[in-house]
Amino acid sequence: MEGQMTHFSEPTVQNYAGWDEFYAKDVDEKIDFFSKENRLFDIIFSQQFDRNFLDYICRLSNSIRLLAKTKSGSRKLRRLLAHKRAMLYFVQPSTRTFLSFLNACHILGLKVSDIRDTSTSSEIKGESQEDSIRTFASYVDLIIIRHLEAGFSEKTAWVLNQSERPVPVINGGSGPDQHPTQALLDIYTLERSFAHIGGLDGKKIAMVGDLKRGRTVRSLSYLMKNYKDVTLYLVSPEIFKIKEDIKTFLNKHEIQFIETDDFRQTLPLVDAIYMTRIQKEYAEDATAEADDYPEFFFKQEHLTEIQPHCVIMHPLPRRYEIEVEVDKDPRAVYWRQERNGMWMRTALIAYIFGVEKKIFKVLTA
Amino acid sequence: MEGQMTHFSEPTVQNYAGWDEFYAKDVDEKIDFFSKENRLFDIIFSQQFDRNFLDYICRLSNSIRLLAKTKSGSRKLRRLLAHKRAMLYFVQPSTRTFLSFLNACHILGLKVSDIRDTSTSSEIKGESQEDSIRTFASYVDLIIIRHLEAGFSEKTAWVLNQSERPVPVINGGSGPDQHPTQALLDIYTLERSFAHIGGLDGKKIAMVGDLKRGRTVRSLSYLMKNYKDVTLYLVSPEIFKIKEDIKTFLNKHEIQFIETDDFRQTLPLVDAIYMTRIQKEYAEDATAEADDYPEFFFKQEHLTEIQPHCVIMHPLPRRYEIEVEVDKDPRAVYWRQERNGMWMRTALIAYIFGVEKKIFKVLTA
Amino acid sequence: MEGQMTHFSEPTVQNYAGWDEFYAKDVDEKIDFFSKENRLFDIIFSQQFDRNFLDYICRLSNSIRLLAKTKSGSRKLRRLLAHKRAMLYFVQPSTRTFLSFLNACHILGLKVSDIRDTSTSSEIKGESQEDSIRTFASYVDLIIIRHLEAGFSEKTAWVLNQSERPVPVINGGSGPDQHPTQALLDIYTLERSFAHIGGLDGKKIAMVGDLKRGRTVRSLSYLMKNYKDVTLYLVSPEIFKIKEDIKTFLNKHEIQFIETDDFRQTLPLVDAIYMTRIQKEYAEDATAEADDYPEFFFKQEHLTEIQPHCVIMHPLPRRYEIEVEVDKDPRAVYWRQERNGMWMRTALIAYIFGVEKKIFKVLTA
Repeated sequence: MEGQMTHFSEPTVQNYAGWDEFYAKDVDEKIDFFSKENRLFDIIFSQQFDRNFLDYICRLSNSIRLLAKTKSGSRKLRRLLAHKRAMLYFVQPSTRTFLSFLNACHILGLKVSDIRDTSTSSEIKGESQEDSIRTFASYVDLIIIRHLEAGFSEKTAWVLNQSERPVPVINGGSGPDQHPTQALLDIYTLERSFAHIGGLDGKKIAMVGDLKRGRTVRSLSYLMKNYKDVTLYLVSPEIFKIKEDIKTFLNKHEIQFIETDDFRQTLPLVDAIYMTRIQKEYAEDATAEADDYPEFFFKQEHLTEIQPHCVIMHPLPRRYEIEVEVDKDPRAVYWRQERNGMWMRTALIAYIFGVEKKIFKVLTA
Repeated sequence: MEGQMTHFSEPTVQNYAGWDEFYAKDVDEKIDFFSKENRLFDIIFSQQFDRNFLDYICRLSNSIRLLAKTKSGSRKLRRLLAHKRAMLYFVQPSTRTFLSFLNACHILGLKVSDIRDTSTSSEIKGESQEDSIRTFASYVDLIIIRHLEAGFSEKTAWVLNQSERPVPVINGGSGPDQHPTQALLDIYTLERSFAHIGGLDGKKIAMVGDLKRGRTVRSLSYLMKNYKDVTLYLVSPEIFKIKEDIKTFLNKHEIQFIETDDFRQTLPLVDAIYMTRIQKEYAEDATAEADDYPEFFFKQEHLTEIQPHCVIMHPLPRRYEIEVEVDKDPRAVYWRQERNGMWMRTALIAYIFGVEKKIFKVLTA
Repeated sequence: MEGQMTHFSEPTVQNYAGWDEFYAKDVDEKIDFFSKENRLFDIIFSQQFDRNFLDYICRLSNSIRLLAKTKSGSRKLRRLLAHKRAMLYFVQPSTRTFLSFLNACHILGLKVSDIRDTSTSSEIKGESQEDSIRTFASYVDLIIIRHLEAGFSEKTAWVLNQSERPVPVINGGSGPDQHPTQALLDIYTLERSFAHIGGLDGKKIAMVGDLKRGRTVRSLSYLMKNYKDVTLYLVSPEIFKIKEDIKTFLNKHEIQFIETDDFRQTLPLVDAIYMTRIQKEYAEDATAEADDYPEFFFKQEHLTEIQPHCVIMHPLPRRYEIEVEVDKDPRAVYWRQERNGMWMRTALIAYIFGVEKKIFKVLTA
């Protein structure tokens, strides 16, 4: 049954009058539009991933990671998609996600065009977004997007799925919106960390920091419905409490969660501690800074208080939320988590082009 | 006889005292300087292309386009020049042409160095243009240039052809000057569109918009002398009428043309409608904007007035000249035209490195 | 005995309390830290190169240069490291060195991620340099750095050598500091130029211009201790005289040197003339410009005064230090020197990944 996806129906754009009407719909109603032939075609929302898919893509990430350790394996990988071309359209600065996707492409041999600086692409400004999108699609086989505007990736996929040249789109982060590949790499890191103790099912996970505006926390929360008996500890100062819509979601899917502002007391209770930073970029109230809440920082002294198997995660970049001294502890997995992002994104691209069977075959050969 | 080029003589730089003297000469006198061993070496002017070359490069573009449709074909293409290195020196912003050339290189496997932002190459500023040019040539096997300065590509080719390391140069657009690869892709699109009705010979083509300053119209006009019985309809407001030098050229080569400011009446008469936009970048009189001339826009309602086989073209980006609703009509070929640019540029690079025989061979095998 | 390196001991970071303590040490004490298994691991200082290494890397550069002349040779080269990924972190503008390294990577097939413009990587700013460095290392197999800050490359190598993911680092120029790959290409150019007259040993070399602040002169001086009976003519105006620390170094290693401000008289005496420019970027006293010292410029008329075998070198870019008319003389080797930089950097990267044996094998096959 491996690789068996949940059934998705085909895009039915004819049902929609236009972008505004489409965009306003619930995510659940839109998911089918981004699938083809019973597989995900565009990667736009975290809600597109079910348990089957998550298990499959984690297994694929693992296979790629292991293959890349050997010279012959990495040579095989880089030939898989050497005849394909990708575009990285990253007009919101993001070195980390950019490098992660770029090197994921490089691992599979894809040739990459990138637009990072809009000042060198000013000609594009004279035309509509829809026209720019169709132009990008003219030249490449895959478009990966990071954009300041919420919904931009979704719009791109929406435009292209109706054009003569549909090209898959991956959302690399759209404004204050979703960041589905971050959620995937977090799941992969959790599953990898708990591989020896039964995986993510049944675990207790603390999410700490700015739970109000962080899209990482939002995306990850959505995915928890795919796992059994997970308990979330939502640890934040009052001002950064998680929003009502996520709580509604968690309740609806019967995911247990506990809200608290006592970081210290939470430490010994959980299997994973997911530290986050303030998303300064989207701060509505500039005065409210995480810097003012050192009681929510992970310090060296806390290492004695967490369980021996508890992992410490962070989406990076960090500022003051985790003391540098913590890095040396084997339970600090945030650098591994960052590298997992590259493997997971490589897996996602391999999946999109349907070459994952070849990867599994090499490993079992 | 296929691929047989008109005879060009070898560069004879010794005849020229210096760049200024060379630059001032008529284009026809300079063409030989950019050829080697009876083939085009640098691609600088539209006037370098004769009918033999145009037919050959269109056929090569077609072959590449067909090959790239299959996995084995695209793999063969990307191995052809994987040992070669190109430089894209694009200091005038141009996302479209940049991406088109970059992906043309990627299709053939060339490794690409690009300079797009002069702020990251400020060291270069301290030296003469000639020295910078020689530096670029030190590292790569092909230089593709987009520059705000008229004649910059020509100067680069001129400098290098006299150096110990001549490297071919392609003009990707020099200021208000020529844009020869745009002209090639336009010809390819016309020939492809008319393949079922005898090709471009004998056709009626309307060029619409800013005929005064658009380099697209200028380059395309030069190429019309290679085709039999073409009639040009030059459709523009009085203020944007085509310049005298082009009319002199058309008269000299006995190319029929009709000047008119009646767009509506022209519609049913022609086989192709080439819409253009105002080149804001080079506008001398900022007040004169195409936006003020909606009677020269192509609207959805016009679709009923053009012939069933008539194609609508545009160099893109468009602003208001063509209504978005027109895109859905199969006669709107501007998106295909854009993609043709990539195939044509791939063909040009393959030709420059002399690997086109291998491409034809794969297809006939 | 070819390729036999001097013995280096393993990194012993445990001996150092922290970066500041490490950084303050003498270069000679730090060299071992940047070696592994008796080979250079990171390329940070010119002082890391001994005669064995210099001879070896010159021979490797030569082999690569010859291989690249043929199609089959260049195809073999570009497959050697096609499964590896490099990062060019060039936040100090430097087109020349950037292109040289980038194309060196391309010759060997490495996939390259580059960060050239910090405005597109602003997210990085929020984190510590150490964290940014570890992030880069997460994604690639080699990091090449150009930075305005003295010691930045060294710090990067220092951080990574202590991490779980040590990745080799090449210093592509750190502030007013060292520029070891420039020194290597200079040595290679000198050795190549003197190949027919016994190599660099016993030669007389004039270094001309700003000897006070130029890092080229500094790096090259360090390497002279590896050659027998070299005499340096240090030719500069009083204000740009070489600093005491280099004179101390030359004296300590018994390298003969003559300080003079008489450029003209030096011309007939030497085997190589190394012209340099003012490093405006680091000028402490903006009024002191080389432009004011035309008596230290190399002019066409000087060509009759130098020896028939004397070579004229320059690190480029040049400003007024060498008249353009000099370029045509076969003794003007600065353009070749620039291209040597690419071959030397290719050799260095091949060496770092340990594939140089394969290169020698192809040539002797």
